[in-house]
This record gives sequence, structure tokens and C-alpha cells, in this order.
Amino acid sequence: MRNILVIGAGRSTSSLIKYLLDNAKEQDWFVKLVDIDINMAKDKVGNHPNAEAAELNIENDIQRVSMISEADIVVSMLPAFMHTKVAKDCVALKKNMVTASYISDEMRELNDEAEKAGVLIMNEIGVDPGIDHMSAMKVIDEIREDGGEMVQFESFTGGLVAPESDNNPWNYKFTWNPRNVVLAGAGGAVKFIQEGKYKYIPYHQLFRRTEIIEVPNYGNFEGYANRDSLKYREIYGLDDIPTLFRGTFRRPGFCRAWDVFVKLGATDDSYQLEDSEDMTYREFINLFLAYNPHDSVELKLMHYLRIDHDDDIMHKLEWLGIFEDEKIGIKNATPAQVLQKLLGSKWQLEPQDKDMIAMHHIFGYMKNGERKQMESSMVKIGADQTYTAMAQTVGYPVGIAVKLILNNKIDLKGVHLPIDKKVYTPVLKELEQYDITFLEREVPYKEG
Amino acid sequence: MRNILVIGAGRSTSSLIKYLLDNAKEQDWFVKLVDIDINMAKDKVGNHPNAEAAELNIENDIQRVSMISEADIVVSMLPAFMHTKVAKDCVALKKNMVTASYISDEMRELNDEAEKAGVLIMNEIGVDPGIDHMSAMKVIDEIREDGGEMVQFESFTGGLVAPESDNNPWNYKFTWNPRNVVLAGAGGAVKFIQEGKYKYIPYHQLFRRTEIIEVPNYGNFEGYANRDSLKYREIYGLDDIPTLFRGTFRRPGFCRAWDVFVKLGATDDSYQLEDSEDMTYREFINLFLAYNPHDSVELKLMHYLRIDHDDDIMHKLEWLGIFEDEKIGIKNATPAQVLQKLLGSKWQLEPQDKDMIAMHHIFGYMKNGERKQMESSMVKIGADQTYTAMAQTVGYPVGIAVKLILNNKIDLKGVHLPIDKKVYTPVLKELEQYDITFLEREVPYKEG
Repeated sequence: MRNILVIGAGRSTSSLIKYLLDNAKEQDWFVKLVDIDINMAKDKVGNHPNAEAAELNIENDIQRVSMISEADIVVSMLPAFMHTKVAKDCVALKKNMVTASYISDEMRELNDEAEKAGVLIMNEIGVDPGIDHMSAMKVIDEIREDGGEMVQFESFTGGLVAPESDNNPWNYKFTWNPRNVVLAGAGGAVKFIQEGKYKYIPYHQLFRRTEIIEVPNYGNFEGYANRDSLKYREIYGLDDIPTLFRGTFRRPGFCRAWDVFVKLGATDDSYQLEDSEDMTYREFINLFLAYNPHDSVELKLMHYLRIDHDDDIMHKLEWLGIFEDEKIGIKNATPAQVLQKLLGSKWQLEPQDKDMIAMHHIFGYMKNGERKQMESSMVKIGADQTYTAMAQTVGYPVGIAVKLILNNKIDLKGVHLPIDKKVYTPVLKELEQYDITFLEREVPYKEG
Repeated sequence: MRNILVIGAGRSTSSLIKYLLDNAKEQDWFVKLVDIDINMAKDKVGNHPNAEAAELNIENDIQRVSMISEADIVVSMLPAFMHTKVAKDCVALKKNMVTASYISDEMRELNDEAEKAGVLIMNEIGVDPGIDHMSAMKVIDEIREDGGEMVQFESFTGGLVAPESDNNPWNYKFTWNPRNVVLAGAGGAVKFIQEGKYKYIPYHQLFRRTEIIEVPNYGNFEGYANRDSLKYREIYGLDDIPTLFRGTFRRPGFCRAWDVFVKLGATDDSYQLEDSEDMTYREFINLFLAYNPHDSVELKLMHYLRIDHDDDIMHKLEWLGIFEDEKIGIKNATPAQVLQKLLGSKWQLEPQDKDMIAMHHIFGYMKNGERKQMESSMVKIGADQTYTAMAQTVGYPVGIAVKLILNNKIDLKGVHLPIDKKVYTPVLKELEQYDITFLEREVPYKEG
């Protein structure tokens, strides 16, 4: 019997645990799910004969090392910054490890040691990062094997509300960490390259530099740029590619309305407001508008940001309640925290609501002197609020990676992400069983 | 004979040294001017009998301590972050000290020790900070002594080009550190309070939230907000004041043109551009505009930022040469560094040019149930490129403070700034001899 240690039992692990338990008998697995909150772990393993729940505080070195040493493989579903603590033990104890998070600099530094120890640490094998890498590399490799030369790669992913549950003017609900949604794009300038021209977008213009993308059967989406697309040149082996762009999907119209909050400064998380507790949402918006004792907040806002009174933006803002006299009720809040509280009550998924993951790649290439274009899209709708699209698209690839590694189907050592054909081929193949499938199609070339 | 040690012989010390040497004989002073570059120091002291120049690397503990121990008072004209190294020695060796810089947190922590040692460390006694504090506190104290209650304080300062040397469409030239001008306002959100309403402005809107202020005899200026006005409530003893605003002066029209660079992201100093060395200024501007193989950079810019083709902004931008095919020629430059290089060649003071410091305060107060308003303004024009307005307005108050302290006219101990009447009264009085005078006048109350 092979022992699988899963550290972290948060919401996004539901489908992973289901996969591991569903396969436990056939694969002769025993799954130990541990969390700082044992009840979270207990809930997820139930009374499955091949599983147990336990408590683990990741800072408890003795307990952590002892649990890792008993495992054949370790999956870390902890917050990303905690992975390396586990990874260092895994290298020392010669255990393979899987995560769904971006490789941090600290994690990358473990590569040589891991290689030397004969250990594989497979990261970025969730949905984004994860399924995006695998589904893109599959097509890129196919184009190259077919004699094509890549000249364009654009990739978009969005975590959204499913069409059947989409009933608000923003066409958006929170399907993952609301804080990350409020702060999306804040921080450094966005970087990408288009037809050989480098492009940089400051945060305060990001949501006005969108493009509309049609996804077969699911209509139009709006893509805004992700932070640093340029680093994917090296990762995907696309060093001299003239167009490389990674973006995030929203539904059309979301971004120009969201831009209002960015332009006001209402997404700032760097300072605390004075007297936020007793302030109303209307007063909150007024903090960012010039003083005038007579004019309304609405008119000042429309004039400041040049919004027509009949623009749909105003409908979206009013629907959120930003002009209401309702108390905020949080002490020493940053603007971003106030905004998150307001949105939390409006963009919450209802119990019957389903989420959706939409992913879309565009590949441009030259073949026999001709410019050609391919698209590859995947849309996954969640089953319910436990087995969400997010949980499934994160959990299944992680689970499949665990199986492949335990069964010695992947002979890599060191710190990796899933861009190798021997990794992505079996993972993408098995994902099809879970209705996570890509529609690949040749499309007419469109100038970018 | 009293020994004065001046550490740092940069451009802004010229008037300070002149003041100390002009008064040396009468006051029985010996001035030792030291710098890491001894030639800078030699140039400034010349062959004055009461002065000498020497070399000092501030990191050389033995040399630094020995020089400080020989002094009766120490003036640090070093970059601000170096002051505390000197201040710690001054406390240990029981020497008074003067700086023209903002009190850092590290400096503030020395207060108790300095008090205990009987040492005065007088900071913020240049122009801004310095003359602004003193000239404002004088009027605030007078209003209070006269039974008035302060309800409004606004204060503006600008380092600009003198009207007689003002010959470009921006009405601006670099009269101090160009890097600080390019990065002005970048960083945290601006905070102030107006008629009891807190107001916050994000950096990307800062240069569109200006107000026009008339300074007697010098015409109109444009003020944009400085970082955190709120902290002056405590410093000036204006805890419950409903309106408190500190700003920076430019000439009207500067800010909305400068806003173009802010909106583009061209003032960003947080990342390096790819291939900046071989790029032209035109290509630099195009980095921030959407890709299009046919449209001109000019039209894309005007459309993106909604600038009419006949707006004076376009004239200002063209005058700077941002649309020219001239090579930038700096490796791995940040956007801010590229912009600084371009501006450096256009906004440079010519040898015959003079600079100008303009300062203006607005005081609103209630007296006998009536709302009243006072203004206080000072404009200083530089003599030449050595004795600039900046050098004079920084150097004279520092020099005067040295004299007052050496002559035991200030009995404060600890870390201070010049808001005490017994400090500002004699300093402001003597500044009048150097034609640094304030025009104070009652004006009709204007709604803010």
C-alpha cells in the first residue's frame, strides 16, 4: 500500500480528495489528509477505509517531518508561501512532491538538491497554472512537429459564474479568493510583446486595454493582460516569438466598470482610511472625489471619470450599492478592504449557483510561408458548491500527477512544471474522463 | 573661537558657507567644511582665513568622530539618510547639530537620548521643510493670540524657474534633483482633509486634481497635493482643523501635460525596459500605446488620453521631442530614467538662468463668529547659478540657526523642528536682511 500525504484541506481540495479516494482501492493507496483544522480534514475523508484525517500545524517540525517520512508522496495544498518548508523536508527525506502553485524563487533554488536526491517536485499542475501549460504545450509541440514556426501565443483563463447562474449586471460572482479579485493587476506594470513590439500597461490603465474573445458555444469574453507575459518566452521555449500575451477573462463590460474603482483609488490596499468604521459606502466613494458642499456624489463621479449618465457603468455601480448610506462597519480598513466587503455581499455565489472555468489559447504560426492560426478552448461548469469547476480543474490534474508519479510513469527529477510531453499527454488524456476537454480548431488568420 | 563643522559641500551649501564665512570674523568662528570630495569643499571655502577644507568619508568612524569631537556645533548637509550616523556621534559627544532635512523615524528615536545629553538636534530648518514651518507658525500663533480659531490651513511651495528666465512652453526648468521631480507624487496615495471631509487621491489622478492660486506680483500658480497633509495636524497643533492641505507649485498648465506621462506609465521606476539602449524616444512612447501597425504614435496617444489635436498639451509634448526618432542610449533603463534623460536636456537651466522659490500659505479662521482669511507669500529669485534661490533659502536659515545656537539664544534640547516662537522669530527676522520676506495680508473669505 502506498501512502499519500495531502497537507491542507481547504475548499479547493475537494475534487483532489475525491479522486484519490475513488482510486484508492484499485491503486492500493492510503490517503492521509492533514490540516491545522482537523475538522476540515475529517469532513473531506468521511469514513473511507483507505483514509484518515489528522491535525498538522506546519510550524511543528517534529510532527511535519514524521508525517512526511511515513509518506510515499506528498501533496501540498497549503498557501503558496508555505510550500518550500514542505519541499525542503521532501528533498531531505527523498519523497516526491506535487503542488498546484507557481514555482517561487525559493522553490527554484531547491532544483539542484532535489535532482541530486533523486526527488521530483512537480509544481504548477492545477488549472492556472497547470491545465493552461499542458493544453498549450500540447498544441505548440504539435505545430512544431508538423513543421510550423510559432509567431503568436495568447492565452486567457477566467474563473467566472456559470451562464445558468449568471443573474447580475456585472456577469460576475466571486468563485475564489475575493481579495485576489479586488487586488487583481495591482502591483507592477503589465508586460507583453505584440508583433515584435514590447508593450507595458500601468495598473491604472489595465482595465481599459482589453480585447474581446469569442469562445465557441460560450459567447464573448473580455480579456485583460496578466502581469509579466514575457517570462513565458523561456518557460515555453518561445524565445523569439513576436507575440506573447497572457490574460484573464471577464464577461464583456466588466472591465470598464471595474476601472471606475481603479481610477478612484478604491482598490488601494496600502493605507488605512480614517474613521472607516462609521463611514457609509456613499461617504467612501466621496473620499476619492473633490470636495463640494452642494454637488451629489453621483454627479461628481460621472464628471470626474467622464461617464455619461445613461452609461451602463452607472447601472452596475448603483446595483452594487456604492451610493447607499449603509455603514461599512470595519475599523481601520484599507480602501480595498471596504470594496471587498461591499462586493462580498453582492457577488456571493448562492447555494444553488455553479461556477465556470473558461480557458482559451490562440496559436499563430508560419507554415510553408503561410500565416496560420489555431485556437484551443475549454470550458468547465462546476457540479455544485463543493465540486466546483475550480476544485475539479485544480484537483484532478494534481491527483492524476500523483498517480503517474507513484506508478513511475514520470522519470523527471528536480523542480518542474508540466510542460514535458510525457507529463501532459497522460494528464490531459485522463482529464477527458472528467469532462475537462479542449476544443482545438484551425481558424482563419486574424491580424492581432 | 567657536568651531563649526559642516559636513557635505554639495551645490545647496553655497549660501550657507557664504553666510558662515561672512559672519566668521565678527562672531569669532572657524568653519571646517568637509566632503568625500575635498575639491568641492576647497572651492567653497577659498582662502578665507577662518576656514579650512578637508576630506571626510562619512563611513570612516575614527575620522568622523575625531572631527565632530573638535567642533562646537555640527551641520549635516549630507543626503538625508546619512544624518543619523552623525547625530548619534553628536549625542555621544554632546555637540549640537543642525540639518535641513525631514526628521526620519530613526532621528526621532534619538530624542530622549539627546535630551538627556543636553544636546539640540535642530532639523527641517531649510526652505521646505523649514521656512514653510516658520512662516506658517508665526501667523498661526498670531491668529490664536488674537483670539482666532484656525479652521483652514493650506500651504504651497515650488522650486521653479524665475520669470525672467522662463522661456519654454512648460514654464518649468529643473532647479533641483531632476529624479525627484520625475518621481514626484509616486508612491502612496495623497491624503488631506477639506471642510471636515477626508480626501484621498491616487498617484494616477494627482496631476488632474490641482487648484489655481494667485501669488501677489507673481501671477498664477497651480498647486497639486503633497503626500500626507494629515500628519501636519499634530506637528502644527492643528488637531481638529477641518481643512489642511499641503501642495507643490507649478505654473498653470504644467500638471495636465505632466499627467500624460503619469497616465502612460512613463514615470514608473519599478522595472527595466527591454532594449532601452537602442530605442528612440518615439518608440519609448509607443511602448505604452496599443499595438497598431498603421496608426501614428501621435494619433494613438491623443485618442488614448482623449487629447484634442489643438490642445496645448500636444505643443508641450512635441517641444520635448517625445515623438522624435532620437536614440535614448541608456542600457536597462526604467521608464522614469528614460523620461529624466529626455527632460534633462530640455529643462536644463542655462548659465544665465535664475531660479525661483515661491511659497504661499492660506489661513482660514473664525473670530467673533466671523470667518476670516489671511495669506502669506514669499517669492525669492536666485542671484545666479551658485547663489540660487534654493541655495539661499536653504542656507540662510541653517546658518542663522547655527549662530543662534552657538550664542545660546535657543535653549531647546532633543530632536526638534523650528515651530517654536523663540526659534522662528529671530530666524525670520534675520532672513529679511537677505530679502527673504513674507507678504502677509487679510483677504476676503473664499469658499474652499
